[in-house]
Formats: sequence, structure tokens, C-alpha cells
Amino acid sequence: MITGKNYIGNNLSSKGTKQYNTFNPQLNIKNEHVFTEATAEEIDEAVHLATEAFKVFRSISKEKKATFLNTIADEILALDDFLIKTYCSESGLPEGRAKGERGRTVMQLRMFADLVNEGSWVDATIDTALPNREPAPKPDLRKMYIPLGPVVVFGASNFPLAYSTAGGDTAAAFAAGCPVIVKSHPMHAGTGELVASAIVKAVQKTGMPNGVFSNLNSSGIEVGEQLVKHSGVKAVGFTGSINGGRALYDLAAQRDEPIPVFAEMGSINPVVMLPKSVKHNYERLAKTYASSITLGTGQFCTNPGLILGIKGDDLTNFIIKLSEEIVKIDPTCMLHPNIIKAYDAKRQKAVNQDNLHVAAEYAEDVKTNYARQTVATVSGKAFIDNPTLHQEVFGPYSLVVECESVEELEAIISNLEGQLTGTLIAHDDEAAQYPEIVSALQNRVGRIIFNGVPTGVEVCPSMTHGGPYPSSTDSRFTAVGIHSIKRWVRPFSYQDWPNELLPDELKNENPLGISRLVNNKQTTEKI
Amino acid sequence: MITGKNYIGNNLSSKGTKQYNTFNPQLNIKNEHVFTEATAEEIDEAVHLATEAFKVFRSISKEKKATFLNTIADEILALDDFLIKTYCSESGLPEGRAKGERGRTVMQLRMFADLVNEGSWVDATIDTALPNREPAPKPDLRKMYIPLGPVVVFGASNFPLAYSTAGGDTAAAFAAGCPVIVKSHPMHAGTGELVASAIVKAVQKTGMPNGVFSNLNSSGIEVGEQLVKHSGVKAVGFTGSINGGRALYDLAAQRDEPIPVFAEMGSINPVVMLPKSVKHNYERLAKTYASSITLGTGQFCTNPGLILGIKGDDLTNFIIKLSEEIVKIDPTCMLHPNIIKAYDAKRQKAVNQDNLHVAAEYAEDVKTNYARQTVATVSGKAFIDNPTLHQEVFGPYSLVVECESVEELEAIISNLEGQLTGTLIAHDDEAAQYPEIVSALQNRVGRIIFNGVPTGVEVCPSMTHGGPYPSSTDSRFTAVGIHSIKRWVRPFSYQDWPNELLPDELKNENPLGISRLVNNKQTTEKI
Repeated sequence: MITGKNYIGNNLSSKGTKQYNTFNPQLNIKNEHVFTEATAEEIDEAVHLATEAFKVFRSISKEKKATFLNTIADEILALDDFLIKTYCSESGLPEGRAKGERGRTVMQLRMFADLVNEGSWVDATIDTALPNREPAPKPDLRKMYIPLGPVVVFGASNFPLAYSTAGGDTAAAFAAGCPVIVKSHPMHAGTGELVASAIVKAVQKTGMPNGVFSNLNSSGIEVGEQLVKHSGVKAVGFTGSINGGRALYDLAAQRDEPIPVFAEMGSINPVVMLPKSVKHNYERLAKTYASSITLGTGQFCTNPGLILGIKGDDLTNFIIKLSEEIVKIDPTCMLHPNIIKAYDAKRQKAVNQDNLHVAAEYAEDVKTNYARQTVATVSGKAFIDNPTLHQEVFGPYSLVVECESVEELEAIISNLEGQLTGTLIAHDDEAAQYPEIVSALQNRVGRIIFNGVPTGVEVCPSMTHGGPYPSSTDSRFTAVGIHSIKRWVRPFSYQDWPNELLPDELKNENPLGISRLVNNKQTTEKI
Repeated sequence: MITGKNYIGNNLSSKGTKQYNTFNPQLNIKNEHVFTEATAEEIDEAVHLATEAFKVFRSISKEKKATFLNTIADEILALDDFLIKTYCSESGLPEGRAKGERGRTVMQLRMFADLVNEGSWVDATIDTALPNREPAPKPDLRKMYIPLGPVVVFGASNFPLAYSTAGGDTAAAFAAGCPVIVKSHPMHAGTGELVASAIVKAVQKTGMPNGVFSNLNSSGIEVGEQLVKHSGVKAVGFTGSINGGRALYDLAAQRDEPIPVFAEMGSINPVVMLPKSVKHNYERLAKTYASSITLGTGQFCTNPGLILGIKGDDLTNFIIKLSEEIVKIDPTCMLHPNIIKAYDAKRQKAVNQDNLHVAAEYAEDVKTNYARQTVATVSGKAFIDNPTLHQEVFGPYSLVVECESVEELEAIISNLEGQLTGTLIAHDDEAAQYPEIVSALQNRVGRIIFNGVPTGVEVCPSMTHGGPYPSSTDSRFTAVGIHSIKRWVRPFSYQDWPNELLPDELKNENPLGISRLVNNKQTTEKI
């Protein structure tokens, strides 16, 4: 059932007066449920409960924490078709996508359950004492990761499940031992409440402390701002726009006690097409990229918004073919009227720039809230001279830059803002001939792809989903994969601590059997 | 030879007009050498050279990087007595301390050389492709740490060698593959220039790119500010005061492209003395703490500035004994007239607070720039009510808080600002009886010590030197030990990259023989 209320800990609450509905972009109508925005008092209570819950949750056993994560996954699956229908009604995305994203969400929760259950993720590091060392004895020192405290998670508009209420940020924070307060995304508040109800059920079934999770509705920016400024909040996870992420980053940095904000923000994901490959493969590349640009109505953070090549007949052939292919694809629905409005505005702003040419634009009639995929072209020089063209156009849009020379191509790459991904398209041994291009690209991105497309973010330990600013606020972390837990933990050392009072992870007998660095040797043995 | 000039890359340069001398606090006279502050143009050139050097240095072989680090250590040792004499003349610290700190500096450089040479620190993580996976094939993904780019290091006043020019921040940044620009500390500019000359010799001897290191003189805040604001600078390391560190953090956060600042700042390092231990051990504790409080004239970031106990005869006995012991110790010299001026001012401010009692103050005549060690006492309630008493008094000063109850003690701990360390003094099984105290203390600090003193920061993998704000600007990192390298690196992923174009760390054949996480198994085997 969707109540429209906030979860303050395990309790449904709606003390406020500010209300809103979600919207069905496919039907172009409001959805029925009415959501009540959290009040300042409810926000305070959620943070207070989280702070109290942290005292217990921070050192709960790994088995209990794993069970909690797995139970959340079970309870999400138990929501069954109602969740899928709600998801579709609030996003305009098809059922297949909803199910796929649910699968990813469940998989991420179980992945963190496995990580926690195994236990070695705390990076236990032990250096035993040397009481007779000269000139001074060496103490016994033992280090492991411990959780930061309550984390606020901002759900993403474009991933109602996998990067929202029980998405990657939340799963990683729970795994770390941090309570989570979700600032629910207004576009999919119903999906958010359903997932929140699954988490609350899991909290109750597995005996987690009340307040380890809260879900706050909000239609504007006030709830989020108040959360980030709250002294009880110790870290923030965000997925969304550069403007939104930067605003939260600034608020967090201006606190008396600054706190870390990991914001995964915009990216235009440059694709560098080397000349030989364009020559030999332009038809295949055009088909592949027409599909990647329009995938999910271009609403992926890894959408290829910028294609860089060397001017000439081959690149012209690629542009012609890409233009032919992309207009063959049926337009699809965007997430919300505001999203399509922003897409059309940014696209118009881009194509109105001097020296920019529209190569393809879907010209037939489209349904309300459906996006017209667009490909534009521009010279390297015009691109360099006009920063407006470097901005993300969130949606099925891509800009092909025709560079005069390899030098110009390298200069463009070197001067790009930070990006989540960069892709290199190369024929046979062509890549080896352009080491400067590869090096320049690597310096601007978090992940580099060879002869593929940037869309599709595999959830596995070797994934980096993050990158230099503004693709993220801190390139030293990833938002996807097991290592994303490092955003929410800090190293902590015990010096000369009695063995029986140490956490199990650091005890001599290694009761958890985890892998530890003991006197510079990685081992699962006891001491 | 000390020239008073800046090193802009390998070249000595002094284009500016702003000049200053260092000061010998033992003799209370200016030292002879005149230093010329770096100009805006020189700063620009240093950053430009660092940016160019990064293109080469970021992917230089691990053996060359290790040789570079070891050669810096050799060249520092080759400076021999001249370095020690300069150090003493600019710090007022004794020769034994100078030699000890040189030993630590050299050891840190060699530790990072070993880390780099071994190679597994890049946390290589590999997930091989599953081309037949349904519904979509899994790509090949390989991740490792890569360097952030040019790092600015601010030398510490209280560690002219180990946390300055070639100290922990610099050694870790070089090991990561980052060029370093040092903002030399004005109090020990001569020591800084000598160490810089050793680094430049090492750059030249080992064929590192010019610009991988620069050393900039400055007497005020302008050089540091310009460096932190410079778009070519990608991270900052700082050791010093809360005001200084926070100012740099704010500047970095306000940039168009915010950059990480790791600032290790102030700490009063609370020591919690449980009642049974005070009863049984007050004499020994008094002697131990009189020595720890005055060690290095109290100029350590881990100096025990706050002792918390339960009011009563036993704690009174401890205070009396501590007072007796501490005035027996001969006063020692502080680093600079400005440091003793600040010590006296902060100490006076503290002892002038209502309800604060001075238990001991060295009363005999002292030489100019020598500090009068001081112990004060205050009730728990007065401490809670007066935030002035929570501030660090940098020098041989400690405040003993007499709490009415265990509850008051716990409340005080819970409301402390973030600290580098916390210490628990407990008798036999006493610690186990106070789990809330231990838990509260752990939540406020980066390192917790049992029945010891916080002074003495062991350099080893299990050390955490950092902690919740304001002891550091980001508790997720340590400033000491091999893991301090993580401040200067970011994870980077290659997707479907050709084996021959991958860095050696990620190649199938594992030519470096490093330990890697391959398909979720830690191994040194090839693929």
C-alpha cells in the first residue's frame, strides 16, 4: 500500500502540509497518490533516531548485517508486480527495464551481504609489538575500517530502484554499518515508499534498531538542504545533476564540521573514433551508436554525448549513416515532463549555437513526453571556442566533433571537463599509434572502454563509476561495486588494546577467519 | 649551501622582492640567510612544470620511482651535519631530536620505495569477460589506482623534516606518481631548501622529469592561497593549525573544480583515567604524563591536552603528584617566538576562565622562548559549559577535568570535537566495565590507546593518523603509514582493453608478480 507518508524510523508520519503527486509521463496524467513532504521536526527526529541507532548498528555482528541486507532484497521481491507497475507509472520506463533494474538492486544488496558475511572488507591490518626495540619499544597496533555515522542518500531520477531508496549508496552504507536517511526523489515517491516499506519490514524482521532507516518525502530542495546541514549527518550520497550535486557539496563544505559528499553528476562520455576504424567500420559503428545514444531515451549517466573524430570523407560517411540509423529508431518516453522540457531547452540551446549543424533529428510526430533523438556536428575549433557545447544535454542527443588534426583532437580531450567514461574506437593495432590520445583521455575519465559503448555499467569489483570533477565530487571513490563501501568508512587504530576487548576482526585468534595484513604478510592465520 | 632561492623545478629562482629570515629561538637572534618569497609568475611556472612532468611521471616504472625515493633518502643523509645544524638553528630543538626526525624521514622514504617496488599497493582488481552471459555479455574489466596529478604540500612548523619538504605527504605523493610542489614553512626555510636540494639532486641523478618537484618560499599566506586556487593543482596536503587548514580547505572547496585537501590539524587528545587505575597507579601515571605533556615542549599533535577522571581523593592525589612531577622537569625551548607568544596567550586565556584552577606552573626563571609547563583543573560541568576550554593550547599544557559521575564523563566524551587520539587508562579488567565510555571515545577519535600515552606516532601499516573533524579534514584517510598513499590516488578502470596496451599491473601474464583480486580471488597467478 502507498500511504504518501514519510517513514521516520519504522513509523509512518505526515505532520506537514506541503503535498504533491507523482506523474505518469506515458499517460501524461498525475498519479493518484498524494505525498506529504517531511517537516523540519520530522527531519530532526529521523536524524536523532539514526544517531541513536548508530550506537548499536555500528558494531552489530556481520551475520546480522548480512541477513538484514538479504532480507531487504527478499522484501523488495515480495512487493512483486505492484512495485513494477508503480515504477512504470512514475517513470514512463517499460516493464522490462523495471524488472532489470529490480534485479540489479537485489543483486547489489546480496553482493554487499556476501561482502559483509565474508568480512575481509574491513582491511584488518595488524603490527604486533616489539617490546625490546631500540631506541623505543614498538607498540601493538591494529587497524580496521569503521562506519562514519548516519548517511543521507539522495535518490536519482533516472534509476528509481538501483540508485535510489535501496540502491547502491544505501546498500553500501548499511554494509558499512551506517544508518541511512533517504531523501526520496519526488518523481518516484511511490516507488520510493514501497521500497522503504520493504526496508522497514527487514528492519523489524531482523531486529535492527529503529532509526537505522528513514525515508523522507520532498518536492523541493528544502528537505535535502536541511538534512545536509544537520550536525547529526556524517556523509552524503547523491546521484543527479551537476547543479544539484554541487549545491549539496557546497552546503556540506560550509558546515562547522564539513562532511564528505559523494555526488555522481553529469558526464558527456566522450567517444574517440580513430581514423582507420571509422574508415573500415563506419556502418557498424553508426548502428551501434544510434542504439547506445537512444538507449533508455538517452537517460543514462554514461550516454555517449560527444563523438570525436578526424574530419574527412570517412567521418562524413559515419555521420550520414548514424543520422540514417538514429531516425529509424522509435522515440521513447522521458521520465517526466520537466525532464523532456529540460532536454528540449538544452538541445535547442545547443543547436542554436553558431557553427553547429543538425545532422539528424527525428521529424515525425511524437507522443507527449517522447523525445526526438538528435545528432549534431561541429568543427573542432568551434567546439574548443564554445563551452556551451561541452555541457551535457540529458537525453538522446550526441554531438560529433570533426577535428582538423590529431593535435586538435588531443587538445580537445585534454581540455574536457572530468568524465565518468571515455571510449576509444580503434582498428587492429591503431590504438598503439596514439599513446598521447590514450593518455590524455585517461587523465579526464574514471573508466576507459575499448571498441565498445559507454552505456552499461557492470556491477563488479573492478568497476569504477566516478571520475574527475564534475563527473563526481571526489574521484578517489567509485559509486558502483564493492569498493563503493569505502565512501562511508574510516580507518581506526587500536594501540596496545587487550585482546578480549578488540573487535573480532582484530583478535589474535582471528575468529572470523578473515584475510588480514599481519606484520606485512596477508594471511588468514591466527597470531 | 643555502641560497635563499626557490626551486622552480630543478632551477634556483628568486624573482621576487619580499624577503625574510628564519630565527634561532635558542639564541633569540635571526639566522643569517635571507629567503626570497616566490612570485605569482614563479608559482605559475612551478605548476606548469608539474603538469608537464606528470605526463611522464604518472606512468614511470615502479623500479625507477623506488630508486628516486631511495635516492632522495641517500641525498638527505649526504647533507650530514649541515642539515642537523640548520635544523637546530631554525627550530630550537636538540640535536638528538633532529637526528631522530631525519631517521624517520629517511625511513618513510624507503618504506614508500619498498611499497612501490613490491607493487601490489595499486589494488589491481580484475574481472574477466563472460561473453556468453545472459541477458547481456559481461565485459572484461580491470581496475587499479592511478595518481591524481600535482599535489601541493604545506610543511609543518613542528616537524621540519618528517612532515615537511620530504616528509610523509611528499613521499606518499611521489610514490603515488604525483609531482609535488612544497610550500616551504617560513620558520625553517633553510632546512627546507637543503632538503629540496637533496630532492632536486635525486631528480637529476635518477632522470625524473624536471618539474616533478618544486620548493617555494613564502613568509605569509599568499603563496599558499595562490597554489591551492591554481587550476593545475589537483590535491593538497597540510599539517598545522585548525585555522590554517580550514582556510585552505575552504579555498579548495570553492574552486570551479574542487580538489581534495587532507589537512591534519589540531587535537587535544583526551586521556580517560578510570577510577580503579587512578587509585592504584596515580604515582606512576603522574610521572608518565608529566613526561608526555612536556615531551618536545608539548609541540606534538598528539600531546595529551585533556585528562578526564572521576572526582575524588584518588584523582586529587593524581593531580597533586602530576603537579609535583611536572615542575621538576626543566623547561625547554619552543620553535619560534611566535609559537611561545601563542602558547602564552592561549594558556592565559584558558587559565583566566571562570572556575579553572592552576594546579602547577613552572615558576622559576626561564630563558627567552622557553615554555612554562602548566597543569590546570576544572569541574566537568564548567568544562561542558565553556567551549574555550575545549581548544588546543599548543605547548606543554594539560587540563584535568574532574567529572561528577561516569555519566558526566561519557557526556563530555560524546560532545568532544574530533580528535587524532583517545587514551584509556584502566586497571586489570576495569575497561570491560565501561563499554559506553570506550564506544563514545572511539566515535570521536582516529586512534585509541590502552594504558599508554598518545605521544609517539609509530610509522607502520596499522597506524591511523587522522580522525574526525577538526583533527583532520577527512577522517577517511591517514597521514602516516603506507595507506596514506590513498589520499593521492583514484581508482581507474579499463574495459575490454587489449592486453598488450594495459599497464603491466593489469596484464594477463602479471609480469610484476603482484597480488591481485582476479574474479574475486586474491592471487599472484597469471590469467
